[in-house]
Amino acid sequence: MPKISKKGAQMPESPIRKLVPFSEIAKKKGNKVYHLNIGQPDIKTPEVAINAVKNFDVEVLEYSHSAGFESYRNKLSAFYKKTGLPIETEDIIITTGGSEALMFAMGSTMDQGDEIIIPEPFYANYNGFSTSSGVNVVPVISSIDSGFALPPIADFEKLITPKTKAILICNPGNPTGYLYSKEEIMQLAEIVKKHDLFLIADEVYREFTYDGDVHYSVMNIPGLEENAIMIDSVSKRYSMCGARIGCIVSKNKELMATAMKFAQARLSPPTFAQVASEAALDTPQSYFDEVISEYRERRDTLITELNKIEGVKVATPKGAFYCIAELPIDNADQFAQWLLESYDFNGETVMVAPAAGFYSTPGVGLNQVRIAYVLKKEDLITAVQILKEAITVYNAK
Amino acid sequence: MPKISKKGAQMPESPIRKLVPFSEIAKKKGNKVYHLNIGQPDIKTPEVAINAVKNFDVEVLEYSHSAGFESYRNKLSAFYKKTGLPIETEDIIITTGGSEALMFAMGSTMDQGDEIIIPEPFYANYNGFSTSSGVNVVPVISSIDSGFALPPIADFEKLITPKTKAILICNPGNPTGYLYSKEEIMQLAEIVKKHDLFLIADEVYREFTYDGDVHYSVMNIPGLEENAIMIDSVSKRYSMCGARIGCIVSKNKELMATAMKFAQARLSPPTFAQVASEAALDTPQSYFDEVISEYRERRDTLITELNKIEGVKVATPKGAFYCIAELPIDNADQFAQWLLESYDFNGETVMVAPAAGFYSTPGVGLNQVRIAYVLKKEDLITAVQILKEAITVYNAK
Ligand SMILES: Cc1ncc(COP(=O)(O)O)c(C=O)c1O
Ligand SMILES: Cc1ncc(COP(=O)(O)O)c(C=O)c1O
Repeated sequence: MPKISKKGAQMPESPIRKLVPFSEIAKKKGNKVYHLNIGQPDIKTPEVAINAVKNFDVEVLEYSHSAGFESYRNKLSAFYKKTGLPIETEDIIITTGGSEALMFAMGSTMDQGDEIIIPEPFYANYNGFSTSSGVNVVPVISSIDSGFALPPIADFEKLITPKTKAILICNPGNPTGYLYSKEEIMQLAEIVKKHDLFLIADEVYREFTYDGDVHYSVMNIPGLEENAIMIDSVSKRYSMCGARIGCIVSKNKELMATAMKFAQARLSPPTFAQVASEAALDTPQSYFDEVISEYRERRDTLITELNKIEGVKVATPKGAFYCIAELPIDNADQFAQWLLESYDFNGETVMVAPAAGFYSTPGVGLNQVRIAYVLKKEDLITAVQILKEAITVYNAK
Repeated sequence: MPKISKKGAQMPESPIRKLVPFSEIAKKKGNKVYHLNIGQPDIKTPEVAINAVKNFDVEVLEYSHSAGFESYRNKLSAFYKKTGLPIETEDIIITTGGSEALMFAMGSTMDQGDEIIIPEPFYANYNGFSTSSGVNVVPVISSIDSGFALPPIADFEKLITPKTKAILICNPGNPTGYLYSKEEIMQLAEIVKKHDLFLIADEVYREFTYDGDVHYSVMNIPGLEENAIMIDSVSKRYSMCGARIGCIVSKNKELMATAMKFAQARLSPPTFAQVASEAALDTPQSYFDEVISEYRERRDTLITELNKIEGVKVATPKGAFYCIAELPIDNADQFAQWLLESYDFNGETVMVAPAAGFYSTPGVGLNQVRIAYVLKKEDLITAVQILKEAITVYNAK
């Protein structure tokens, strides 16, 4: 019998997928499950995007340019400029989601055995993209006690070897909700320039900031042009995850020419989705104002409720729509499974994402969970009340 | 300044892209260019597919299942069964084009430095996917004199090393148009079973056969279940290349579980395109009958016209919509460039794809070009007449 690859064997399973069979059990029992585990917003996609697809008249659905429609890239460049990012059309390659942009970034900058430094906890699929690219993740731990602020730059410096090719940050962070300050970004800029590394910034949650804090992009830093790679996506911005459109952005010409070769091999990003994404750029500001205020209220509700549970530690997220909560339990993996398999409170239970899957260092974050606030306020309140009851029952076992 | 990866530097450029600047020159001169170089059909996409997207009512454009809509996989399984392929829903993962299916297949079966044997000439992007996966392509030459039939199985046997993990075929072939016989597929089945290799069959042109020959799929071979991986796509079948939907199919459970981890890392295939692809399964047989008869006529026209040029050697393609023609010239790369840059016949010229880019062995196929018959018959006739004139002028230089 033929054998699968070592790389394939090492590909991680998503920390949430492992729980899916148990959520099926909960459903079979007739229990209602509050999904605090997902990153799929419940917000409506702007109508202007959906309508553009409905009105798209096409006879032959052709491949588009490998870098995406030129009209879309032009309009996207104008959109970025309006938000203060000096991004030209030729600095953009449209990709199939931010996911593909991350893979192009890794493929263009790193070879088998090279190292990428990532502050943990981090978006779990960075592990999958790294494994698939043959790249080793070198984690640098950020702490819940500092709200997951940037670890001291000396911690990065210690980890840099001749194999280090890039530092990857997610800003604002999934799963932490942390928004890096200008000073933190400047520190990173300095260290990547000093060591000739790329600074890859996953900014797919850029619009989601809540306390008047300004998002500081790697594309904003003069002098960092050759090092900075920005990853973006329409998935969260317009609540259109199913479109599968993102982009890789950089002013480094050699990097972009290289990424373009990866883009050409896979021919083109999806056409209908590009039509939707181009039209989505006309989404009125009122849409975002509403969405942000909705998320802010949800965040405040969630954090208030979580703080009512004794022994819970949580840092107030400044952006995105996740937080990491430390629970007064031993093992969040077992707890999350138990919640689905064996627990209910009047026929209801909750699903949370154990945080260990967001750490690369073994044994860290075992008593932490990631909670997404993509549910309505009432549901968030109920869900956290169930969580509170559950913790008491679980610890009394 | 940070450096790009070695892998990125090695990523090949498409053999056609290199000519794009010269086609721009031709256009600037006001010359009309007949594109014999492209693989983008001019056939209309079935209305049933486009209309499904127009009528798709959605409020939140969500991620789909990482393996694709279950409804689509069910219907696709039924479609395959109707054509005699015993493929179940769980044997299918929907991908972003056949391109992504090829990458999942390579990632799931091969590690850095592993080897894949491919009869050449082959679809040029196999080089890109291999480079990006860290895999070495080991070519086995097929010859224009045998119409690009399967090379003797002893030629494969000689190339197998402990690093060989798979044999990849394209059936019917791009760029050769060759359709493997049942006997040839059985020979391949035997050798992969003997050496515990995977047999990856790119069957994206399956429907396009012209002489009553039956397409013989790797999924048709009893006993090959653990070795066979089929790559499929809606791009050519329904002339909807821009959708970006394909699939990877196998009965090997471990392989599929591994491919699924790659699929989960990138979240999901595009939603609008899945809606179109699911609906496309209802395309009436009359559509295909018309398309096939159109392509058959184009093929016959093209081959008849090419055979009128002295010194041209061409094998009549049995499937797909390409052929390789050997021209009475030294170097097809220079000739193709000259056609665009310096030649015109009454203000018209042709663009062809130099075949060297479809070979992995250096120095082979230098006097060959790939010609796609995705133009109307009248245009094919004119284009080949221009080619004939051009060869005379070129050789008289
Ligand atoms: C931090 C982060 N980056 C990238 C992605 C990938 O998103 P997409 O491929 O839908 O653009 C996600 C999705 O959840 C994410 O949370
Ligand atoms: C032989 C072959 N395989 C795979 C593909 C990839 O097609 P897609 O990714 O559009 O499904 C093509 C496209 O031309 C092809 O010719």
